[in-house]
This record gives sequence, structure tokens and C-alpha cells, in this order.
Amino acid sequence: MSAGMVYLVGAGPGDPDLITRKGLRLLRRAHVVIYDRLIPHELLEETRPETELIDAGKQPTRHRLAQEKINAILIDRARKGNTVLRLKGGDPLVFGRGGEEALACRQHGIPFEIVPGVSSAFAVPAYAGIPLTHRHLSSAFTVITGHEDPAKNDSGINYRALAQIGGTIVIMMGVNRLGEITRRLLNHGMDSQTPAAIIQSGATPRQRTFVGTLATIAGIARAHDIQPPAITVVGDVVRLREDGVAWFDLLPDDVLNATMAPAMLP
Amino acid sequence: MSAGMVYLVGAGPGDPDLITRKGLRLLRRAHVVIYDRLIPHELLEETRPETELIDAGKQPTRHRLAQEKINAILIDRARKGNTVLRLKGGDPLVFGRGGEEALACRQHGIPFEIVPGVSSAFAVPAYAGIPLTHRHLSSAFTVITGHEDPAKNDSGINYRALAQIGGTIVIMMGVNRLGEITRRLLNHGMDSQTPAAIIQSGATPRQRTFVGTLATIAGIARAHDIQPPAITVVGDVVRLREDGVAWFDLLPDDVLNATMAPAMLP
Repeated sequence: MSAGMVYLVGAGPGDPDLITRKGLRLLRRAHVVIYDRLIPHELLEETRPETELIDAGKQPTRHRLAQEKINAILIDRARKGNTVLRLKGGDPLVFGRGGEEALACRQHGIPFEIVPGVSSAFAVPAYAGIPLTHRHLSSAFTVITGHEDPAKNDSGINYRALAQIGGTIVIMMGVNRLGEITRRLLNHGMDSQTPAAIIQSGATPRQRTFVGTLATIAGIARAHDIQPPAITVVGDVVRLREDGVAWFDLLPDDVLNATMAPAMLP
Repeated sequence: MSAGMVYLVGAGPGDPDLITRKGLRLLRRAHVVIYDRLIPHELLEETRPETELIDAGKQPTRHRLAQEKINAILIDRARKGNTVLRLKGGDPLVFGRGGEEALACRQHGIPFEIVPGVSSAFAVPAYAGIPLTHRHLSSAFTVITGHEDPAKNDSGINYRALAQIGGTIVIMMGVNRLGEITRRLLNHGMDSQTPAAIIQSGATPRQRTFVGTLATIAGIARAHDIQPPAITVVGDVVRLREDGVAWFDLLPDDVLNATMAPAMLP
């Protein structure tokens, strides 16, 4: 029996057309695909009829157990000689736990490759017309996860430093904690008038974007009942959206539908 | 004459197999391609024989003039009814000036779309076996450009805050300034033993990676004569490379060559 192989593949953000050439080729060949909840589900249509599809999003929400179980499935299927594709939303190593899966493969002697994907951290802002950097506005950006409880702060993120660092801040997920995160930044002296935007379901036809300030964005998110998945951007670059960089929201519906249905294009 | 269109497309990092499906499809159709120096040049083989190829890297190094000239070419060619593809290394909006080009298109009434790409900021570390985040080591990352002079600090980046923020730091380019940047972080109290890695020509068969600490990495870069393009990663996640996440450096030459020559694959 030939040795199996694990590919840790980034599916990109909501738009299924943003998967990489390498990711797509592997997806069309894989014997087993273990996919996350936040992948563009249209991508599963690219697999072969006999491919085993495993929904890792249906694991219990107790992440530690789920992650161990996913690791065990990767190793089991690869040991049986399969080409196993672990398909994750965005990039596999940006808040994706791909590092843990790579280590599990290494520890069990399973060869693996990492196939980076387009990360939602910058692609979702891009679909909302917000570049994370701009020569005159921001030459740095910091990406944090809103899934962490800022009060517990296991992560060691220093919110005082975050309030002072300058550049753009991207908050991945964590809509629930947005009020707490922005309050911390304000308490540490960050300018309350700093522009901010929240984007729900970015890079999909359901994308919704709302703009405010550091002081108002959490209230705006509540008022518009923003649901996950959502990404918040804080910084002067948010102004570029209304200065003219917005584009995806302006696409006519027929173009939008064609854009989002790449399987139907040549 | 039908209206032209501009696509601002990320080519991804060195590996030409990391372009997105959308980017590749547009590349195969474009009438005009204006490309940067740091794109994987194999991608140009995907264009049609009659496509006009313009090397934007051959512009004078005085960036302001060059950027204005690029904008003028984009607008001129689109006005003539062409599908114009602006192909940039990595992602077009992550230190890519895509925002400026988008604004120029908007100001001149040229329709445009942004096609995000795999950014070198996380993909080059991934090819070196370094995840930017990890549940127990880092739940945030900050990306800065080493092209800015930290003494002038036009960008408003606060190095004291950067030294204190926690999480992973990625320094794009700027090998020349690495000594100055790391000295500033050390002067602001960042732990001198923080692991650090520098990666030259990431995601290409010429990739070289060296590991040290915040205190030693600039000297290591000099000792090994690291040349651009190079990316530096500072943070505990660098340890994961040697813990077992390294993979690209371990590929046998024949696999590596196959990996890097996707045009020859089905």
C-alpha cells in the first residue's frame, strides 16, 4: 500500500473563485476531504463522486476534543494510503489550527504539505473596498481574534499597546465581544473618532458593510443585528471605501451572480 | 467601442501555483497585463500571444512618478476598451498600492475589480513552517514594512507599542533596516531571546531560512548575505518550524521541481 499524504489547504474567503490553482487541483484529486464550516460550500462540487466528504463543523463545540478527533481522522485516512485534503476557510495557518494538524502529522510520520489560501483578514476588507495599508494612511496592520476573552487575555495581547501602535487593526470574528474590545481600546486612549467598519458574510452575495467610528461601531453592529461570520476593521484606511475603493457592493446583480458562480464559467 | 475594465490582481508569493482560480482565468483573457517585479514570472506564460505585457518594475525607482505613470497606463488602456490586468506580487492591497490604483480608476470613471491574492506576509512564513498564530503561543500578528525608515517614522508606527503588543511580528522586506528595527524593539524592552527567522526568496526553489533570536537575527542575515526579497518573523511561533511544521525545505528535489512547475501538470 502506498503511503498517504495530507494537504492542509486554505479555501479562501466566501468567494469560491478565490481558491488557489494548487488547492483546486488537489481538491479534484483527493480521496478524502475534511472541511470546515466556513469554507465556500460550492467548492465541494469540485470533488470526485467517490471522495469521502467529512464535515468537521459537525464536531462538538468543545474545540480541544474536536481538534484531537480531526487529527485522528487525518492520520487514520492517510495511513490507509489516501490523499487527504484538510480544507479550511481562508488560510490554514491564520487562526486556522493548521499548525497543530501539521505537528500531529509529523508526530505520526505522515507526510504533509501546506497550501496557503487567501486569508479573510485582508480579503474581506478588500471586498468592502478597504485596503489594510496605504502609503499616507497606514503602513502596518495588526490582526487579532475576537474569539479570545480580552478580560482573561490568555493570548498575552496587550490592549494598551494595541491602542497605541498605529496602523490598521483587524478583528476576526467575535461580534459578541466587539463592545468589550472597542471599550478597552478607548480606555487606553485610542481616538474615539478613528473610522471603523464591520463586514458580515464578506466576499459573498450576502455581504453587508457598515461604517462608523471606534466609539460607535459596536452599537452599529448591534443595531443591524450583525451575525457571524464578521470582520471589523479599525483605522483611517476605512475612509478609502467611501473615497472610491468600494467596488463589490456596486456590482450589478447579474455580474455578482456570475462572479460568485465560477463553476459555470469556462 | 465597449468600455474597458481594470482588474487589480494578486499573483500570490513566489510559487506560481498559488494564484487564485479567478486571477488565472482573467490572466488568460486579458488584453493588457501590467506586472510587478516580484510576481512569479512563470505566470506570464499563461497570457495569450497577442497580450500586451508591460513590466512596471522597469519604471524609475522614484516611486511617486512611477506610480503616476502606472495609473496613467491603466486608464489609457482601459479607455481604449481593453481588459487590463494589474498583476502584483502577493495581494494587491497589502503594501501593494492597489488602493491608489483603484482610486485612480474611480476618479477617471473606469470600472475595476479587486482580486485578492495569497499574501507573502503569511504564505512565506508558511513555506518556512511558521504559522503566524497558534492557540498556545500567539493569537495575534502585526505586519510592518521594513521599507520605512524607523527614524523618520512617517508611518506613525509606534515601536514601543510594537515591542509590547505580544503576538507575532512580520517584517516585510527592508533587509537593510533589519538591524535598526530589531535594535528599536530591544531598546523598548522586547525580550532579546524571542525567536526570530528570516526567509529569503520564500515559496521558490531558492528559499533559504535562518533562525535566531531578536538579538541575533540581523547579524545572521548579514552573515548569510540575505538579499531581497526577504521576510522576517519574530515570535514564539518560530519554534514550531523546528518542532515539526517545516515541510517545504524537506521536499525531495524532484517533488520540489514538480511543485514549482504547475504549467507542466494536468
